[in-house]
Amino acid sequence: MTTNTFDFIGGDIGAWKVISMDSVSGLPIENVKYIDILPNLTNNLNKGVWTLTGFTSNVRYAEKDEREKLIAVHSDLGRPQANYAALIPIRKTESWWAMAQDERRKIFEAKSHHTETGLKYLPAIARKLYHCRDIGQPFDFLTWFEYTKDDKDKFEELVKSLRETEEWKYVDREIDIRLVKA
Amino acid sequence: MTTNTFDFIGGDIGAWKVISMDSVSGLPIENVKYIDILPNLTNNLNKGVWTLTGFTSNVRYAEKDEREKLIAVHSDLGRPQANYAALIPIRKTESWWAMAQDERRKIFEAKSHHTETGLKYLPAIARKLYHCRDIGQPFDFLTWFEYTKDDKDKFEELVKSLRETEEWKYVDREIDIRLVKA
Repeated sequence: MTTNTFDFIGGDIGAWKVISMDSVSGLPIENVKYIDILPNLTNNLNKGVWTLTGFTSNVRYAEKDEREKLIAVHSDLGRPQANYAALIPIRKTESWWAMAQDERRKIFEAKSHHTETGLKYLPAIARKLYHCRDIGQPFDFLTWFEYTKDDKDKFEELVKSLRETEEWKYVDREIDIRLVKA
Repeated sequence: MTTNTFDFIGGDIGAWKVISMDSVSGLPIENVKYIDILPNLTNNLNKGVWTLTGFTSNVRYAEKDEREKLIAVHSDLGRPQANYAALIPIRKTESWWAMAQDERRKIFEAKSHHTETGLKYLPAIARKLYHCRDIGQPFDFLTWFEYTKDDKDKFEELVKSLRETEEWKYVDREIDIRLVKA
């Protein structure tokens, strides 16, 4: 049996060692030394200091041509040389979620070029999105990124461009956790 | 504390008495006499024969003008005179979920007029959608409808028109449960 739901467990042990934890906006979360990522199925022995849970899902904004481009330059997680990672939990405002699909799409892509920006950094920066708003979590999304030491600057560029977008005006809580393979 | 996640518990007790249970397509589920709807938060004493769990969420397809129309003719659940209800769990095919947002939207509205059809029967037929694909449930959606005895024919019309749409070609499992207040 497989699951699409994963626990990001922050604590004293784990496969990824925390380099830094910054509260970009809103309430911080408790600092931890390691993060483990485990399927939510198992009765995990590692309870950690905190656990953030999210599920992978179908695409919510990407249109056919964008999706085809994304698939063409897709990059898998778990590349042996990609020793660096970032976990960025974000929450969006109630006003974001109150908008209709076309209004959100307009801000997401037409104004903020979210997919287009992500595409620019593929396949260097591998990325996976986990949803958590619907399951009573403190954040709406957890995004996990993996990249090599050589691509660290590219990652900074990517994060900087996203934070400058119109879409990011609707982000009211954001934590930026940087990690290295333990 | 409130939750957006609810359990539909089928068993020998409950606030709604089952009139009929039909498998429209795919595998049936075990027949039950009553259904109870309880917040998923509580440690429910009523375990029932089966439990289907779903969460309410933001709109996934409706655009600004459709959303405004829906709000204008919105009808609440729990109207004292609306003694009849239907619970319709459905699952869609993998090919549906593999499509991009614009492809699904095209089938949902441009070809199948899903929102437009729903609007025609508002405020007579109150309706609430629960999502469950992302949380490992056997169905993708649970839709709950409430209406008065006088509107039973309207409800049959609504269900019939939805089942004739292009969208419904992507439904590979559907149960139709009709109920009356216990």
